[in-house]
Amino acid sequence: MTEPFRVALAGLGTVGTSVFRLIETHAELYAARIGRPLEVVAVSARDRDKQRGIDCTRCVWFDDPVAMAAEAEADCVVELIGGEEGAALELTQVALEQGRHVVTANKALLAHHGSALAKQAETANRALRFEAAVAGGIPIINALQDGLTANRIERVYGILNGTANYILTEMERTGRAFEDVLKEAQELGYAEADPSFDIGGIDAGHKLSLLAALAFGMRVRFDALPMTGITAIEADDIAYARDLGYRIKLLGIAQHTEEGIAQRVEPCLVGAAHPLSPVDGVFNAVVIDADAVDRLTFVGRGAGGEPTASAVLADLIDVARGQVRPAFITPAEKLSDLPLAAVDALPGPFYLRLKVVDRPGVIAAIADRLAR
Amino acid sequence: MTEPFRVALAGLGTVGTSVFRLIETHAELYAARIGRPLEVVAVSARDRDKQRGIDCTRCVWFDDPVAMAAEAEADCVVELIGGEEGAALELTQVALEQGRHVVTANKALLAHHGSALAKQAETANRALRFEAAVAGGIPIINALQDGLTANRIERVYGILNGTANYILTEMERTGRAFEDVLKEAQELGYAEADPSFDIGGIDAGHKLSLLAALAFGMRVRFDALPMTGITAIEADDIAYARDLGYRIKLLGIAQHTEEGIAQRVEPCLVGAAHPLSPVDGVFNAVVIDADAVDRLTFVGRGAGGEPTASAVLADLIDVARGQVRPAFITPAEKLSDLPLAAVDALPGPFYLRLKVVDRPGVIAAIADRLAR
Repeated sequence: MTEPFRVALAGLGTVGTSVFRLIETHAELYAARIGRPLEVVAVSARDRDKQRGIDCTRCVWFDDPVAMAAEAEADCVVELIGGEEGAALELTQVALEQGRHVVTANKALLAHHGSALAKQAETANRALRFEAAVAGGIPIINALQDGLTANRIERVYGILNGTANYILTEMERTGRAFEDVLKEAQELGYAEADPSFDIGGIDAGHKLSLLAALAFGMRVRFDALPMTGITAIEADDIAYARDLGYRIKLLGIAQHTEEGIAQRVEPCLVGAAHPLSPVDGVFNAVVIDADAVDRLTFVGRGAGGEPTASAVLADLIDVARGQVRPAFITPAEKLSDLPLAAVDALPGPFYLRLKVVDRPGVIAAIADRLAR
Repeated sequence: MTEPFRVALAGLGTVGTSVFRLIETHAELYAARIGRPLEVVAVSARDRDKQRGIDCTRCVWFDDPVAMAAEAEADCVVELIGGEEGAALELTQVALEQGRHVVTANKALLAHHGSALAKQAETANRALRFEAAVAGGIPIINALQDGLTANRIERVYGILNGTANYILTEMERTGRAFEDVLKEAQELGYAEADPSFDIGGIDAGHKLSLLAALAFGMRVRFDALPMTGITAIEADDIAYARDLGYRIKLLGIAQHTEEGIAQRVEPCLVGAAHPLSPVDGVFNAVVIDADAVDRLTFVGRGAGGEPTASAVLADLIDVARGQVRPAFITPAEKLSDLPLAAVDALPGPFYLRLKVVDRPGVIAAIADRLAR
């Protein structure tokens, strides 16, 4: 087989241009690993004239990514547009209808439509792959799919949003207020102009819903995933936590309980000896507790052009090798409707910081309220 | 395909009995993941009458593991005997000759005969898999094979021996001497009666030679891997290192340099902020620096029955699914004879602790020697 494996690339932002560039610079390596060349035959982006430092004159240009998914002579469409509806959803559906594989980095799309798209892909006997959608460059789906396949997963949790982790790390390091650090992160390009998905825990929730589906063989249940972000965290909270021997991290946690799967995103106190404690800045980390292997921790870059492109290309290379497997490991029609546990199904210690008037009886009143 | 995938199990120690038990307790899970049942049809161990808490009366018993590899009606032989020569080597060769796949946890065997056995397996179109041989339960070969396949690896290094790491951790925690802690580790079962492979860095060297072959597509060159163990480390060294902001860890390091691949095992000073610094006790960790993904860190249990069995079974399940790939990712006949760099090709800061007579001129004399 020396026919190239043909790729249509939708979206030429940071990740898209990194994917394009890696396919050029690593052509020989990838051809050796696949057994045939990997070639970008079509591209689509908003602005054709933007300077991106790549030469796509050999590729067919499409202004409309959905038209590209329908018409490009490609074996696989790579979706790097983003967004849970609109072009990203349409082009994925159209590509699968046309018998093309789809590789995507779009967690929002999959959190909302993952189960349905997985079913469509399997019916069409095509791959729908999304390693890049969860924890960026960390090959966590690969690990769940292959490396840990002998295990029953008990719990999967981690630091899934680099922007929130960067803000918490900087607040701790400098003692500055949330708003200050957020503004700086936006100036540095670590936070978006509208940061609500990152700081509100929604992006972490998207990713956690996918991890839970993969780990527990359940349908994606982003609709039933309680999320608390980091906007209420103050410098004082971080300082008090440190005095108590903890750091504050925004964690996504999904866990088997007797009542069902408990999943949630919230700021947590992490002890100094815990493997997540030293994970700073824009790094992501995933911890898996499983019955045979015990505890595994994976740490790596959760975002950025090249690390994310590394994950996109791992999928592409695997699909080009002929690997077509169910998107969520478990076949879509067997993904279960496991009961979801109530939020309080995961009992744990809490930290309360109270600002009170310095008057006799105040503590007694609080204790009384808590007791009730 | 509902015919079972038949396994012959050589060696019923801690790992072997864990493999046997997991295949029984997780039968349904594995059958679902493979698409056919996984069944142990033959076993071999030294002592037939030993109490192991497993019932292998349904299996054909072989006193001689090599005879089992030749005669058992098995699709795959699992080698958990250990040792670089003798029965382990013979049974691997015989199994491949008979057209059976081989899954092994034997790093010594592969460090010495890996390239030749890989060639034999590929000629026979059979799998030779060894996830369990490197870093126990951490699916590091899986990550190199699939998750990081879009990357050029620049460096791979880590804590590859849990016994040595346990001893160093305990020395640091308690301030006790090496011999004391070693003795306790032996009593606790963390160190073997003959601990020379663990404390001498040889076991870590075995594993590193395999990681280097996988990461760089080179022949296994354990014969050219300088190894320094931890026997010369004193409690004072650990205390001084701590004062300087470091911890002492026994690391295996393999790295691309301009002069070739530099590989070695030696005790290193690890800074407090480094991802390997918090890896304590019997845990293993592997760090990969690669061109696209930047840095990835994997932490998990490096030994123990169930974590190692998790890796053995990941291989078994993959082979049972029909995955037959080159043992070292790169096909055996293409594994290169990359030049090996001299030991001093990796310049780095060193720590020297000197006991000197308190007399004028001593420091000057030492400085003079060092200058020369």
